[in-house]
Amino acid sequence: MPDGLGASQGDRLAVTFGPGETATLWVVLAVAMAALAFAAWLVRQVLAAPTGTAGMVEIARAIQTGARAYLRRQLRTVAVFIAVLAFVLALALPVPHDAVHGELVLRLGRSAAFVLGAAFSAATGYAGMWLAVRANVRTAQAARGSGMRAAVRVAFRAGGVAGMVTVGLGLLGATVILLVFGQDSTTVLVGFGFGGALLAMFMRVGGGIFTKAADVGADLVGKVEQGIPEDDPRNAATIADNVGDNVGDCAGMAADLFESYEVTLVAALILGAAALADSPGGAITGVMFPLVVRAVGVLTSVVGILAVRPRADDEHAMRAINRGFLASAGLSAVVVLAFSQLYLHDLRPGIAVCLGLVLAAAIQVLTQYFTDTRYAPVQEVARSTRTGPATTILSGFSLGLESTVYALLTVGGVVAVAAVLADDPTQALYFISLAGMGMLTTVGVVVSMDTYGPVCDNAQGIAEMSGDLQGPAAQVLGELDAVGNSTKAITKGIAIATAVIAATSLFGSFEQALRQAGMSFEGIRVDRPLVLVGLLVGGSVAFLFSSLAIRAVSRAAAQVVLEVREQFRTRPGLLAGTERPDYARVVDLCTRTSLRELMTPGLLAVLAPVVVAFALGAEALGAFLAGAIVTGQLLAVMLSTSGGAWDNAKKYIEDGHLGGKGSTQHTAAVIGDTVGDPFKDTAGPSLNPLIKVMNLVALLLAPLVVTTAGSAWVRSVVAVGAAAVLAGAVWWSGSRPPVNMLAADSSAQAESRLSSR
Amino acid sequence: MPDGLGASQGDRLAVTFGPGETATLWVVLAVAMAALAFAAWLVRQVLAAPTGTAGMVEIARAIQTGARAYLRRQLRTVAVFIAVLAFVLALALPVPHDAVHGELVLRLGRSAAFVLGAAFSAATGYAGMWLAVRANVRTAQAARGSGMRAAVRVAFRAGGVAGMVTVGLGLLGATVILLVFGQDSTTVLVGFGFGGALLAMFMRVGGGIFTKAADVGADLVGKVEQGIPEDDPRNAATIADNVGDNVGDCAGMAADLFESYEVTLVAALILGAAALADSPGGAITGVMFPLVVRAVGVLTSVVGILAVRPRADDEHAMRAINRGFLASAGLSAVVVLAFSQLYLHDLRPGIAVCLGLVLAAAIQVLTQYFTDTRYAPVQEVARSTRTGPATTILSGFSLGLESTVYALLTVGGVVAVAAVLADDPTQALYFISLAGMGMLTTVGVVVSMDTYGPVCDNAQGIAEMSGDLQGPAAQVLGELDAVGNSTKAITKGIAIATAVIAATSLFGSFEQALRQAGMSFEGIRVDRPLVLVGLLVGGSVAFLFSSLAIRAVSRAAAQVVLEVREQFRTRPGLLAGTERPDYARVVDLCTRTSLRELMTPGLLAVLAPVVVAFALGAEALGAFLAGAIVTGQLLAVMLSTSGGAWDNAKKYIEDGHLGGKGSTQHTAAVIGDTVGDPFKDTAGPSLNPLIKVMNLVALLLAPLVVTTAGSAWVRSVVAVGAAAVLAGAVWWSGSRPPVNMLAADSSAQAESRLSSR
Repeated sequence: MPDGLGASQGDRLAVTFGPGETATLWVVLAVAMAALAFAAWLVRQVLAAPTGTAGMVEIARAIQTGARAYLRRQLRTVAVFIAVLAFVLALALPVPHDAVHGELVLRLGRSAAFVLGAAFSAATGYAGMWLAVRANVRTAQAARGSGMRAAVRVAFRAGGVAGMVTVGLGLLGATVILLVFGQDSTTVLVGFGFGGALLAMFMRVGGGIFTKAADVGADLVGKVEQGIPEDDPRNAATIADNVGDNVGDCAGMAADLFESYEVTLVAALILGAAALADSPGGAITGVMFPLVVRAVGVLTSVVGILAVRPRADDEHAMRAINRGFLASAGLSAVVVLAFSQLYLHDLRPGIAVCLGLVLAAAIQVLTQYFTDTRYAPVQEVARSTRTGPATTILSGFSLGLESTVYALLTVGGVVAVAAVLADDPTQALYFISLAGMGMLTTVGVVVSMDTYGPVCDNAQGIAEMSGDLQGPAAQVLGELDAVGNSTKAITKGIAIATAVIAATSLFGSFEQALRQAGMSFEGIRVDRPLVLVGLLVGGSVAFLFSSLAIRAVSRAAAQVVLEVREQFRTRPGLLAGTERPDYARVVDLCTRTSLRELMTPGLLAVLAPVVVAFALGAEALGAFLAGAIVTGQLLAVMLSTSGGAWDNAKKYIEDGHLGGKGSTQHTAAVIGDTVGDPFKDTAGPSLNPLIKVMNLVALLLAPLVVTTAGSAWVRSVVAVGAAAVLAGAVWWSGSRPPVNMLAADSSAQAESRLSSR
Repeated sequence: MPDGLGASQGDRLAVTFGPGETATLWVVLAVAMAALAFAAWLVRQVLAAPTGTAGMVEIARAIQTGARAYLRRQLRTVAVFIAVLAFVLALALPVPHDAVHGELVLRLGRSAAFVLGAAFSAATGYAGMWLAVRANVRTAQAARGSGMRAAVRVAFRAGGVAGMVTVGLGLLGATVILLVFGQDSTTVLVGFGFGGALLAMFMRVGGGIFTKAADVGADLVGKVEQGIPEDDPRNAATIADNVGDNVGDCAGMAADLFESYEVTLVAALILGAAALADSPGGAITGVMFPLVVRAVGVLTSVVGILAVRPRADDEHAMRAINRGFLASAGLSAVVVLAFSQLYLHDLRPGIAVCLGLVLAAAIQVLTQYFTDTRYAPVQEVARSTRTGPATTILSGFSLGLESTVYALLTVGGVVAVAAVLADDPTQALYFISLAGMGMLTTVGVVVSMDTYGPVCDNAQGIAEMSGDLQGPAAQVLGELDAVGNSTKAITKGIAIATAVIAATSLFGSFEQALRQAGMSFEGIRVDRPLVLVGLLVGGSVAFLFSSLAIRAVSRAAAQVVLEVREQFRTRPGLLAGTERPDYARVVDLCTRTSLRELMTPGLLAVLAPVVVAFALGAEALGAFLAGAIVTGQLLAVMLSTSGGAWDNAKKYIEDGHLGGKGSTQHTAAVIGDTVGDPFKDTAGPSLNPLIKVMNLVALLLAPLVVTTAGSAWVRSVVAVGAAAVLAGAVWWSGSRPPVNMLAADSSAQAESRLSSR
């Protein structure tokens, strides 16, 4: 295939599904259903565990109510956006004309798949969170009643549900689309991936703003102004803080990984036929291989999840989790390599999958090194607190700058090795997509690890608030929470790496789309001035997006501060404990503000590619994507690592080092931690769905860009229009600086209280 | 010229210099000499001004001694590096074989030009600094004796010397090379540019580390620990702090702009012949035009510098400076447009130059908006101090992230317009290089503006330390210092923009070099996996470089802290004022540590392109450069803006807003300022010479990469060797974390004092 990307094959998969393939698809479908059934079994297991004291249950219920209210409202808000885009997809964006199915069927199918992708993404997040807000109290109770082993089991199995729903729905959607649309699946799959990515981005950004607004707001009034402990029930923002852990880390991350799972599969399916056209089994094997790899991953994830059970009460929880991960990864590697050799008569695709498994493990090691209290970097940040907050910030910031370089070199290394394995560029991209699949083979376990984090965090919160937990049980929960911090950091690292890998392999589809639409595409040549401008603009999006996300948190947190203060002022019995705060008001406030703040980042992700595509052309659009990949990856890891390191430097000091709690060192560390909050939980992890959304928008736009290339006025109108909307949104966000909102508080007192504290 | 870059022309300039051209070259040479003569006249003017009291003179002398000592030592250190590279250039890197001159002559000529470029760059920095450390005390005296107008005149004319030396030496070097080497000048000019760029990078990084180590160290012990004011003569680090202003802002920036001036000219000369091959005057006009534009700039800069004189004592100094800049820019635009029409019979090259003038002005406006106390952004950062240091950091950081996007869009816009003006890709690159020339047409005035900053800063320092200045004169100097902060920020913005523009236009030369060496170059196609990896790696260099620079400052500052503390401890009469500190020891310490810290960033800039070139190939090397441009520009402006905004937010509070000096708001602002110090004065401004050094290394390497493409073992050995050296250097830097050095202090007391303060 000399011109690389199977251009002559059209947008269709150049394969025919024989009876053998159809049968395999049904088997894969059965595996997907089995994953969902296993999830249901896990739910029953978790719910069967005892719920603890009445005080604990009451707090847990408040968190459940808040989380449900937030997610409902978010889905309602986002539904409008999804509906509009579903129409745009159906009406404005072309589909291939050489398809087996009619044009109308394909257009409607793509829009339906888009809505389905969004719905599945939402469902994944919702399911994970639904159980997490029920497992938290049960984990706390298990720690009280039976100790460490039981607590880990409950928490991790709750996480397992999110994991299995992610893989079950992901595989289900893709298989059904392949069964229904056959050769025309590509077009529909892109729609499916886009729906998943878009919703994931909203869940990530919205949840990230919610959780950090509540967290920062609660800390600023509670810890700093009133001097009461974290998670104190007198603080009106504590429930919102706990809700935030669930909607951000849990629902947001599950949706995010669902989307990564989906997009890497889509990329592999699109490239598969062309990449293995010359293989002994024919082109169809390139399409079937990734599906079978996914099915294998589902089964090994089950093994991994079941393997997570500490062998003794004094075994470190991280060891048990690592064991589950390694069991699942090792088993997958063996099966996939064997299958690659037997089915494809070629070990290389299997090796590519294993590269991904290795990459996931390498990122785990790197992330732990840079963010775990046991290693030099975090300890250095902790020691830099001795010369004050400024050196603390500089130390964590330079650590983030450095660590992201190593993460990028690791990802780059895998891309390079996968490319070198291949015979031609298409195969290279296929192998890269397989490496992305490999990274997510163990996604069942990875999502479990991640969801485990907020469950333990919440369990500790509930325990502290209810006052029903002391002594060894409290210590168990404290340890589990620290482990949760590490697992959260690891999943973020893996998620962003998949974004880069998926985006790289999607370049293949992008070019295919351009060629098909009639463009004489010769590569994305960044040495051409206009293409370079596209690259520059693409690189800048991640910066603007991060700025918007960080400011959104500041703004929302300022509102929480005002509300909590107001409650302390109007309820004089609050501090004494004779009166109760109105938790729901704060939850509601966080919900409203975080959903309002969603708009500008959302528009940026969808409209920035539109502006570049129509102002600078298709080649510049490709460069735009490349630029977004570079800075997106670099900023994402930098923000996550800095944030994680500051957080754990604080924990390190709280563990009694360098003066411990209450020392000036601790104060400096708390400042670092607060700076890191929006870094690691809002801006950083949102960059990864951002990259994928922009990628898929570009993929969908590509044909239209080529066909309108000749008419300057259409291009100008669309580009200027999109740019104007975007500029307006950015201006609207910028015109409401956080501190002005504080000043605009109805009571002028609030302002003066603020200045005089 | 369908294949774009005049590939068929070889590396030679495809022109013949007739008698008319030679005569013009002599005229340009005369203009260069005139610039130097004007500089000499300005020196006499400045030195004729009175020097003030004996106390002031004594302090000034200490600063002079320190600055001279630092620069001598730095040049000695760097000379080794330069000598080694001059040999490598002569021996290892090929020259074109179709040249008029013999191969040996060209090799030696290129090495000699490399050394000359470095020497000129050093001389520019040295000259600017030599006068600045003499003008500071005279500015202070002028403020005492004659008031504002006289003070601005002395300070700005001292700056003018640096400006005129920059343009004089820049034009002199290029013209002499053209006169000597004629058609073969390209090869030699690249060597000249490389020398200038490399030295500028060292001056920038070394000076940046020196100045911030002294500044941060002085503040940590003086202001924070001992509670004595800034610039207090009892603080042993104050002289070093004032020396730092000169070696960083003054010598560093002058060398940096010298190099920008040089590199944009080189790019325009290389592209000129091919770009205007079809023009009425023939290819030669494309080469002569940029030279004449430069000569025009020199003359209008003289007008601009003379125009800076406040009309009244109450006129704001910034207004006078803006007037000088606009006079110079406006005059240049008119003359250049007229010349473009009359000589080339084509307005477009003139318009391209004007685009650069407009870009410089736009960056000035943007920078002022984001960093001046008069506008909303800085005031928002200042208000965010009310909720503590964490929100201050977040607010300044998100501001930086946002502002860099606008700066990038502005630069991208100019590149796009220049490209659209052109008929073909070569012409597009030529026009872009002309825009870069346009930005630097007023460089005489720009350097003057910049050097003006440290002169005023020093004048204020000398005034405060000597105690010989009170009342209105002190206020005048305070105002001048604030203006200096703005002008410094503006020049940084302009300098980094020129890096992007110059790098873009050098893509043309890069491709030409590859084609000539026999590569069938088809563009830098980032959709190819290995090329994309090059892009990713290129993007990561700026992150690693910034991390190294920030940590170097922390390490060096920690050593200053120890030294100053030691002096307070061993000299009991110091605090009472009965004993004097040993200023020279601190200066010497800063000198030694900052020069040691130079090594790793220097190796990174030179070796990173080598690794990529030999591991991934020539096309990936091109993508590497593109990646470096994207993140380099984005990080540079982000760091400079954040730092500038924090600095001025502090000044805004010190002016009496939000509680003024001593309030908790002020404390938070000081923390922001300290974080911003290495951002804006070390890492940020060093990124711009970094980009240019890597660009020129790539340009020099290109032929070798192509000729060794076939021999895998040569490539592997070089790539692995370079990577190993680089990894070793990074490890060496990382293995000396700043805080460990504090702990390693011989007296264990220092450690405990630090923890307990």
